[in-house]
Amino acid sequence: MSLIVQKYGGSSVAGADMIKSVARRVAKTKDAGNDVVVVVSAMGDTTDELVGLAYQMADQPGARELDVLISTGEIVSSTLLAIALGDMGYEAISLSGAQAGIQTDTAYSRARILGIDSKRLARELKQGKIIIVAGFQGVTEEMDITTLGRGGSDTTAVALAAGLKADSCEIFTDVEGIYTTDPRLVPEACSLAEIGYEEMLELATYGAKIMHPRAVELGELFNIPIRVASSFSDNPGTLIHGGASMEARNKVTGIAHDLNVAKITVVGVPDHPGIASSIFEPLAKAGISIDTIVQNASIENITDLTFTVAKDDLEKAMKVVEPIAEAIGARQCASDSKLGKVSIIGTGMQNTPGFAARMFRALSGKGINIQLITTSEIRITCIIDEARVNEAVRTLHKAFELEQAV
Amino acid sequence: MSLIVQKYGGSSVAGADMIKSVARRVAKTKDAGNDVVVVVSAMGDTTDELVGLAYQMADQPGARELDVLISTGEIVSSTLLAIALGDMGYEAISLSGAQAGIQTDTAYSRARILGIDSKRLARELKQGKIIIVAGFQGVTEEMDITTLGRGGSDTTAVALAAGLKADSCEIFTDVEGIYTTDPRLVPEACSLAEIGYEEMLELATYGAKIMHPRAVELGELFNIPIRVASSFSDNPGTLIHGGASMEARNKVTGIAHDLNVAKITVVGVPDHPGIASSIFEPLAKAGISIDTIVQNASIENITDLTFTVAKDDLEKAMKVVEPIAEAIGARQCASDSKLGKVSIIGTGMQNTPGFAARMFRALSGKGINIQLITTSEIRITCIIDEARVNEAVRTLHKAFELEQAV
Repeated sequence: MSLIVQKYGGSSVAGADMIKSVARRVAKTKDAGNDVVVVVSAMGDTTDELVGLAYQMADQPGARELDVLISTGEIVSSTLLAIALGDMGYEAISLSGAQAGIQTDTAYSRARILGIDSKRLARELKQGKIIIVAGFQGVTEEMDITTLGRGGSDTTAVALAAGLKADSCEIFTDVEGIYTTDPRLVPEACSLAEIGYEEMLELATYGAKIMHPRAVELGELFNIPIRVASSFSDNPGTLIHGGASMEARNKVTGIAHDLNVAKITVVGVPDHPGIASSIFEPLAKAGISIDTIVQNASIENITDLTFTVAKDDLEKAMKVVEPIAEAIGARQCASDSKLGKVSIIGTGMQNTPGFAARMFRALSGKGINIQLITTSEIRITCIIDEARVNEAVRTLHKAFELEQAV
Repeated sequence: MSLIVQKYGGSSVAGADMIKSVARRVAKTKDAGNDVVVVVSAMGDTTDELVGLAYQMADQPGARELDVLISTGEIVSSTLLAIALGDMGYEAISLSGAQAGIQTDTAYSRARILGIDSKRLARELKQGKIIIVAGFQGVTEEMDITTLGRGGSDTTAVALAAGLKADSCEIFTDVEGIYTTDPRLVPEACSLAEIGYEEMLELATYGAKIMHPRAVELGELFNIPIRVASSFSDNPGTLIHGGASMEARNKVTGIAHDLNVAKITVVGVPDHPGIASSIFEPLAKAGISIDTIVQNASIENITDLTFTVAKDDLEKAMKVVEPIAEAIGARQCASDSKLGKVSIIGTGMQNTPGFAARMFRALSGKGINIQLITTSEIRITCIIDEARVNEAVRTLHKAFELEQAV
């Protein structure tokens, strides 16, 4: 007998009929002879509605109270699914995060899971029950309710799969799996049969829309294979795993993009030790994340320092950098907020120089100017004009023949 | 410093502005130097909406799951009130029934409180916090959520007042207090300054609409004075208590009525020992509550046995009684479902024969025929034609000069 953890997102349980349809899918898994633990998100827009209520009460609702409030959304959907399964003749029990033994720290609204006390879960499973766990929430040592922040229910599912040593973790959502790129941008984008944890993480914004990086990292940490599939079809979806077949592939898996990029250039900086830290330490203190950093070759001891930040952080970053630039004798400070990122992702990329050349050729063939380039072991990223990002994604998708991906 | 438990009903927290208004009232109590524990019901129609969702899932939703589902309504309102108080600069914390230590048996949807573990409550009070407890709910030894059934939040408030040895328990609702009779029937009905626990219980349906008998009984058991007042005014409302002033009054306090009365008469019963039990034991086994029982004086060992049941139970009761009547050789079985009850209520009534005479005179003065009469220490009840009940209430209210009640 296998133990399977399944997670259903908010769009899969948005209404009564959809919950019944999820119940049938859960029942089928049980009928196949498996033990089943199900994690559910709140119905449709419930969480937003609850948050809206809180902001009618206060401009800055208390963090502890807000967590208790929004945790009720998942409790409602978990009980409704248990009721639907009960009506179909299955023994099902809903458990809150607290009852399921999901122990967290006290960082309200973004709590980290410290451990799973699986006693209750084990007892209910032993009795043959289907367990429905309210996602997105946990409980502190003091028995206060916490929520896990964005991607919380995915994290609940992977953490339960790890804690229960489940054989499989299935994330059901409203898309067919992980695509080679955002299918709204490239209609030819294909659902992948499999993808590595790291590659999945590099899909950045597009990937995070399907599964939060935090849950993917947790899956990697505990080596839990995660299947992402649609709750509206019977297609197998995408298996996220760390298996060996990945390494050998040496192939571009997908194209990621990000429109949230701004660039700051400190022009004419006297090049001596300590200059970089005099700029980046104050930025870190101000809570601003730096992405790419490029320093041009120094000519007559004068250099240009370029780095990127999220667009929202640009104004704040400029306020930090401008006085420093003046103090260290830089010529000027320039910024550009109309930038975007496009990346090709695939394992073994670093050992295969041809990828980078093919990427740059494809972009230049469309007259797309590359402003900055960064690479990791499994990714090559070009920073380009914001207005050309969509075209770049389509161009690269075609250049790497991803419409034929499996 | 006094400890005050306040309860606000669903109509007092039905919307954002109303919750803010409740917050101001709670803050005022805190500012006056009191420790405050607040119990809230779910907002407006929330509970009905949640129950409606459950019945979209199943014709017969599982009892455990239904309780977890509807318990979320009070959690939502308790957090919103805590958020509103936090915004006003007060330290407030919401606690679920489980967190507040309200321990119950496992009778889902109508759980009984077994005890209050007040450790957490005491700790939060010691830190000067205002505690908002989600009403209507508790937790079993297994940490499963239960709800307390009708009048649950009133019961929560009185039980907390008892468990914390509070100085006062205040039930805020949408009426000005306990009236001499249902004010929708008699516009001259007055709010009483005080009423005894037993008298309050005798107000039956009308009284229960304001405060559930179960909560009144709990107040009597632990001798907790309960103030019932409007959350929309500053009037003092009605104090329900067991104080001595009651006994001495010898006065009619209020008029109760009930339209849910049906009568069954077993005509021509051979009068010998065991006849009554042969009828009433099967009725009890069928779960039918008997109210009044009257047995006429036996003539030639033949008697008539009359008793009343709730209208909803009439059909079921007749099905039980008819075969028995035939078996014991009764002449026939008759029923009347068009009956109602009207009662005068007041302490010391039994020692003052004038009350009964005055009641019968007033009713006969209007040509209202009395079918059955029953009495208790503090109540005289006449069963009359359903169609005359409202008129009887008005007549008695006037006859006992209740429009001048204090």
